[in-house]
Amino acid sequence: MSLEKTLYIGPFIHSDSLTTLDIAVNGMIGVDEHGTIAFIRRDMKGKQLPTEPGWEESKIVRLNARHGFFFPGFIDTHIHAPQYPNAGIFGKSTLLDWLETYTFPMESSFREVRQAAKVYNRVVARTLSHGTTTACYYATVHVAATNLLADVCLSRGQRAFVGRVCMDRLSPEYYRDESAESSLRDTEACIEHVRGIDPGFELVSPIITPRFAPSCSDESLKALGKLHQDSGIPCQTHISENKSEIALVKKLFPEAPHYAGVYDEAGLLTSKTILAHAVHLTPEERSLIKTRDAKISHCPASNTALASGCAPVRQLLNEGITVGLGTDVSGGYTCSMLAETREAVMVSRHRSILEDGSDECKLSVEEALYLATRGGAKVVGLEDKIGGFEVGKQWDAQMVTFAEVGETVGGLDQKEGPVEVFGGETYEEKVAKWVYTGDDRNTMAVWVRGRLVHCKEGFKP
Amino acid sequence: MSLEKTLYIGPFIHSDSLTTLDIAVNGMIGVDEHGTIAFIRRDMKGKQLPTEPGWEESKIVRLNARHGFFFPGFIDTHIHAPQYPNAGIFGKSTLLDWLETYTFPMESSFREVRQAAKVYNRVVARTLSHGTTTACYYATVHVAATNLLADVCLSRGQRAFVGRVCMDRLSPEYYRDESAESSLRDTEACIEHVRGIDPGFELVSPIITPRFAPSCSDESLKALGKLHQDSGIPCQTHISENKSEIALVKKLFPEAPHYAGVYDEAGLLTSKTILAHAVHLTPEERSLIKTRDAKISHCPASNTALASGCAPVRQLLNEGITVGLGTDVSGGYTCSMLAETREAVMVSRHRSILEDGSDECKLSVEEALYLATRGGAKVVGLEDKIGGFEVGKQWDAQMVTFAEVGETVGGLDQKEGPVEVFGGETYEEKVAKWVYTGDDRNTMAVWVRGRLVHCKEGFKP
Repeated sequence: MSLEKTLYIGPFIHSDSLTTLDIAVNGMIGVDEHGTIAFIRRDMKGKQLPTEPGWEESKIVRLNARHGFFFPGFIDTHIHAPQYPNAGIFGKSTLLDWLETYTFPMESSFREVRQAAKVYNRVVARTLSHGTTTACYYATVHVAATNLLADVCLSRGQRAFVGRVCMDRLSPEYYRDESAESSLRDTEACIEHVRGIDPGFELVSPIITPRFAPSCSDESLKALGKLHQDSGIPCQTHISENKSEIALVKKLFPEAPHYAGVYDEAGLLTSKTILAHAVHLTPEERSLIKTRDAKISHCPASNTALASGCAPVRQLLNEGITVGLGTDVSGGYTCSMLAETREAVMVSRHRSILEDGSDECKLSVEEALYLATRGGAKVVGLEDKIGGFEVGKQWDAQMVTFAEVGETVGGLDQKEGPVEVFGGETYEEKVAKWVYTGDDRNTMAVWVRGRLVHCKEGFKP
Repeated sequence: MSLEKTLYIGPFIHSDSLTTLDIAVNGMIGVDEHGTIAFIRRDMKGKQLPTEPGWEESKIVRLNARHGFFFPGFIDTHIHAPQYPNAGIFGKSTLLDWLETYTFPMESSFREVRQAAKVYNRVVARTLSHGTTTACYYATVHVAATNLLADVCLSRGQRAFVGRVCMDRLSPEYYRDESAESSLRDTEACIEHVRGIDPGFELVSPIITPRFAPSCSDESLKALGKLHQDSGIPCQTHISENKSEIALVKKLFPEAPHYAGVYDEAGLLTSKTILAHAVHLTPEERSLIKTRDAKISHCPASNTALASGCAPVRQLLNEGITVGLGTDVSGGYTCSMLAETREAVMVSRHRSILEDGSDECKLSVEEALYLATRGGAKVVGLEDKIGGFEVGKQWDAQMVTFAEVGETVGGLDQKEGPVEVFGGETYEEKVAKWVYTGDDRNTMAVWVRGRLVHCKEGFKP
């Protein structure tokens, strides 16, 4: 891959700690032929270009300081790509009946590659349009459809982890792995496919994906754990989302100390493990997860929609556990990580209500954005490559734009997007408005490794 | 006002009870020169037009059954128009500090009519674009700015209740009524202005608006109560949003039996009273409110954002109290009633979590839509005119559209809006997708009393 060297000129904003944003209003970031950040300037006000020797011929992407900022791409650490057509459809179900009623029938339709092509192209295009530059996908049990998802991510340029779902028990007859052996074999087939299309896993990586403990036999969990340990390929699964689910795990694994222990005993709880949800973990489980350095994907919209509970994010963070955000489509209703960031703030307010008004529970906008970028980068083990703007990191970024409301009493230009800037706002307030009131209309353009992977009509790169 | 007689042909959907939607896929609604529904047909499939004598020359607005439906306009029963520029800006504040930090400084800027013109034009244009055909506005203390809001609603064609805010104590020096007398006098001036521009209050009505008990002296509450009783003009205020606020009311009104009693004793608790929030009412208060037939505006996004609590909507409904929805901009972050409808569903899930998984608390999509339309109509006392499609009601409606995802693997047409229809969905599921994943891009056109008051670029009426 060789790209035009590019200078991104304008405000850039990224997290410099959990609680604070670094805001460089007069910034410039130089991105080289490989999509890597070569240098960063923070005070370009009034300076003539070119300021860097060797960059005289570079392409320039310029953003007026009043009209937006560059921001790191979002990292969605938990999304079920095949469930996308069900987004927004739940009734009043909770986890276990929702799986039976909506999820398994939809996922089973991916035996048809044509269905996979239709849905997966749409999911990847749509999540890119929302600024998701990295996604951890659950696919289905089907090898061909899963491989197609990897192909789509690579061709559309989205950084992705793609997992064939393993489920050899307690699953419907019409949708399951035949055996622990076939589950392992099919998982290996998908890994080999990704190795074929992206040998260094530079953009797309396989990920070992036991659905969750109840749908995997002991034998299958152990085989997948061994594969995880031997290959170093990451793994992802669910944990402690819902109280009935936890009771089911207790019944199915009577000898395990707890839910987290089931994964640990199978060799599936390591620093390369992503655990989705973690709403109801016990102190012992949190301590084990911390010891193993396993990562947690917090899915607030899903917590709410399925009435699972409010994950105690502040407690997890205080105990030193790594947390990112996931949309959990379609347990979550939205594939927008911006909406999910807002939901993280909102669910933390509900956690505060649960804890009698505790202020400590509340996540700020800055903290939620950290989880959506830096936190997610750590969850997927790519904190050296993505999540913020530093020299040597890759240019996974989005250009966020908005227009100022005019002085006149005119109408509405809907193309401008929903964020309303009236003129007196600080940058911190503009960021808060983006998180609370913005949507994909405010994401003008999106890059992964320096490649333009999405832009709005009218964007002149 | 005389309009072209118009036939609206296509699916129409509206609530026929709290829990059910009436879905007429092959519908036709005839709207006369006065914007009134003259007839409704439910089975137009394969029929030739014209089918109605006297309607041969009518205008036709046709919607393909696969691409959307007509739906009643939303009724926002609680929105602070001047706070719109603050939407999304809270920090981690709760009610009382939020008022001091963000709200009062913003509202005080409406002493400048130019500020009012800029913001109010935008609020009305924007809420119309979200399908809000009726809004209950709080303005500010300023007479000129409040009158301007009424003018803007009338000229842009939004049905509205416009209230000058009364606050003669416990308010900052820089932003308050001088006295109970001036508060009453200024309120009467605003009422006279509206009477001047819309004598029958056909589209725009004044509404008496004591901010909330803590910011009104006894004298002022009583004077406003007398005005309410004598004039029959409706009133709106806040109640029991936040525990510190309730404690403050107890301290300020030591002799009142409770918060609701403060309003009742002043003559402000009647069947024409809209009470916003009602998160923490006691059984005695609910019983009094039921007896007086006062109405409640539930503001779920605000409940969450300010961590006020989760209003017990199911309980209110079970007890026979009338409930509608309000965005409560900018305690609520969004001016979209569609988003607020979703938030009502979500907050009911959190109420369920608070009540140990109670299924009964959960509002369905259908119930939330009822609250946003029929419920709101009852709250504002216009249930005979708006909220659903029946002969004799006025055509306050929105055309909701979405496109089906193509069979091909192509890109994304962002103009189509965010709702993704894959082809197998029932109408109930399409409605759920609209509520969970839709936004103003799915609102193609909006009418109030038969007048087209908003449409998207490209709409051919």
